[in-house]
Amino acid sequence: MNKLLILGADGYLGWPTCMYFSKRGYTVIAVDNYFTRNAMVELNCEPLIHPPNLIQRARLWEEKSGKKIIVHIGDVTDYPFLLSIFKEYKPDTVVHYAEQPCAPYSMMDRDKAAFTVKNNLISTLNIVYAVKESNPDCHIIKLGTMGEYGTPNIDIEEGWIEIEHKGRKDKFLFPRQAGSLYHTTKIQDTDMLWFYVRTWGIKVTDLMQGPVYGIYTDESREDHRLLTFFPYDEIFGTVLNRFVTQAVAGYPLTVYGKGNQQRGILNIIDTMQCIYLAAENPPRKGELRILNQFTEIFSINQLAEKVKIVGGKLGYNVKIEHIPNPRVEKEDHYYKASYSGLLKLGLTPHLLTDEVIEELLKFAERYKDNIDREKFYIGINWR
Amino acid sequence: MNKLLILGADGYLGWPTCMYFSKRGYTVIAVDNYFTRNAMVELNCEPLIHPPNLIQRARLWEEKSGKKIIVHIGDVTDYPFLLSIFKEYKPDTVVHYAEQPCAPYSMMDRDKAAFTVKNNLISTLNIVYAVKESNPDCHIIKLGTMGEYGTPNIDIEEGWIEIEHKGRKDKFLFPRQAGSLYHTTKIQDTDMLWFYVRTWGIKVTDLMQGPVYGIYTDESREDHRLLTFFPYDEIFGTVLNRFVTQAVAGYPLTVYGKGNQQRGILNIIDTMQCIYLAAENPPRKGELRILNQFTEIFSINQLAEKVKIVGGKLGYNVKIEHIPNPRVEKEDHYYKASYSGLLKLGLTPHLLTDEVIEELLKFAERYKDNIDREKFYIGINWR
Repeated sequence: MNKLLILGADGYLGWPTCMYFSKRGYTVIAVDNYFTRNAMVELNCEPLIHPPNLIQRARLWEEKSGKKIIVHIGDVTDYPFLLSIFKEYKPDTVVHYAEQPCAPYSMMDRDKAAFTVKNNLISTLNIVYAVKESNPDCHIIKLGTMGEYGTPNIDIEEGWIEIEHKGRKDKFLFPRQAGSLYHTTKIQDTDMLWFYVRTWGIKVTDLMQGPVYGIYTDESREDHRLLTFFPYDEIFGTVLNRFVTQAVAGYPLTVYGKGNQQRGILNIIDTMQCIYLAAENPPRKGELRILNQFTEIFSINQLAEKVKIVGGKLGYNVKIEHIPNPRVEKEDHYYKASYSGLLKLGLTPHLLTDEVIEELLKFAERYKDNIDREKFYIGINWR
Repeated sequence: MNKLLILGADGYLGWPTCMYFSKRGYTVIAVDNYFTRNAMVELNCEPLIHPPNLIQRARLWEEKSGKKIIVHIGDVTDYPFLLSIFKEYKPDTVVHYAEQPCAPYSMMDRDKAAFTVKNNLISTLNIVYAVKESNPDCHIIKLGTMGEYGTPNIDIEEGWIEIEHKGRKDKFLFPRQAGSLYHTTKIQDTDMLWFYVRTWGIKVTDLMQGPVYGIYTDESREDHRLLTFFPYDEIFGTVLNRFVTQAVAGYPLTVYGKGNQQRGILNIIDTMQCIYLAAENPPRKGELRILNQFTEIFSINQLAEKVKIVGGKLGYNVKIEHIPNPRVEKEDHYYKASYSGLLKLGLTPHLLTDEVIEELLKFAERYKDNIDREKFYIGINWR
């Protein structure tokens, strides 16, 4: 039976991934140090709903599905701990969600920046060493981000580019220049993984994911105690989830700057599919496989407009407000990014239909009393 | 009067740089935590000569030159310490030598790899934050390495490349893929600096330096107590310094693999010139200026052959031995790298003449009794 180790198993994507693989017959080992859960409390950015802790979640899942998820609470930057997990379970695949995944958090101050750098790079380094020491065949699936590419004036390819220069050719990592320190640590972890792939012949999949939206997966729809976090604040909330919550709260949708920034986004259901397809179809040894993970490209204005229209149908008078951009980013730019690798592996995209937005709005509506309007604008500034 | 802060001031390049700038009228503030000095002892890789500690060196320099070098012993990864130095002295320029600079060290085990990552990236991050908090006009000079580029099949440009792709163009950092974890951290610190240059408008010079050789600078030639370290071992010794010491010890020159690996190298005297030219000609705000810092390209075989010939003239029967390559690197490759930026700023190269090799051989000869042959081959393996 396949064994999957999920690091960062308590997070927005981590917990749904645990259930997704467990349901499909994998032995799932779930590890988390509750960093994000705790940081949300410390920064007064608690999510819309409060999921049970990881041990309780696993118990609920076992009651419901009859399948056991093994839980260990610990820190991936603690190498002896991590190595003991690898040696005990010998996973075939490890999914690395244990990086600090929040751009505004990484821009708040020196200490949070340093934490982001240390956590994200030492966790990745530890995984590489633990794989080498315990089972060099273990497939590392690392989450990257489309944000690593930034908004170049050329087409974004899937991880690699062949460059012809002065009559000679070579293939390189596609050039990267990201818009936050967090996104930059994802460039740095790719530098590191690419080095160890070449040097030690390990196998790595780097999933260049766009912003994820959504809340329900098949495993959680019927029992809300199994739902993942739904952050909607300026720090931890991704753009569409925040817009939906703002619409329900009667708060203007906060579009940063002109709103012509384009991003490739995807439904959380498709994240599950993508991770599963990557795990089921590992790369060969000595390969760094890079896949762009999104299903549709929209501008921020288009997303706001969609929420406004669907919100209107549900009786909400949704306003859109362009606020001064707290980030340093291009607001008008060329954007063409390819994404064929995951489709070839079998991904069936779930697109951002009006029904999907309606479902999200209704979810936010159900928990409307939990919304704290103060969280929508905190004022983290990049400058 | 110009103020220069040198971080890593006790190292092979750090101390000569202190004297070079002090002699030329700069107020020099020298900071070190003795990491390399201590690591050389811990790993039984002590250098050929034992220089006095930084406080003693500064005292000797003051006796000789009448100029004061201010010394603080502390760790650049300790942010409150570093910020206090920036706030107290408000340097115009900071030279960042405080990274762990040794490739074999970074490949020895997980702990040394993790130390290298944390030290090199947190030190760089701290400098960026300290500059922003104390004096955003301060010019950061960061040492990079030619090793970041690796050995691509296209010409190596000076830091940047314009890419034409599917009929569109953009300018990017020249693609990098290095041959050790240490070299990879230098790619990562460039990712980080480039992000903050774009976001905060700081000014940074990244000097892509090749392997440095040599011992004497004008400031140290007459008083050997002012000389820098001269490591000659497998871990800390750079290639030419190691060959020269091996020749004097009657130990075969240890060429890794075929020896056709080509590298751009430079004399320590030219490192001094390059740092000085960079400091005297800062980039504009919001610019990441990248300069390739070497003066000649040789293969490892060519270097060994040169030492053999000059050694022969001095009566040494120098043997060359090709040992299995402990590193993972191409042994036959295309190599063409440009280096015009520093020449344009006024660099007068000191080339690797027979006289220069002879002087180095005579230096090693003078301290022949200190040579420990066991240090030439320790067996650090990349795999």
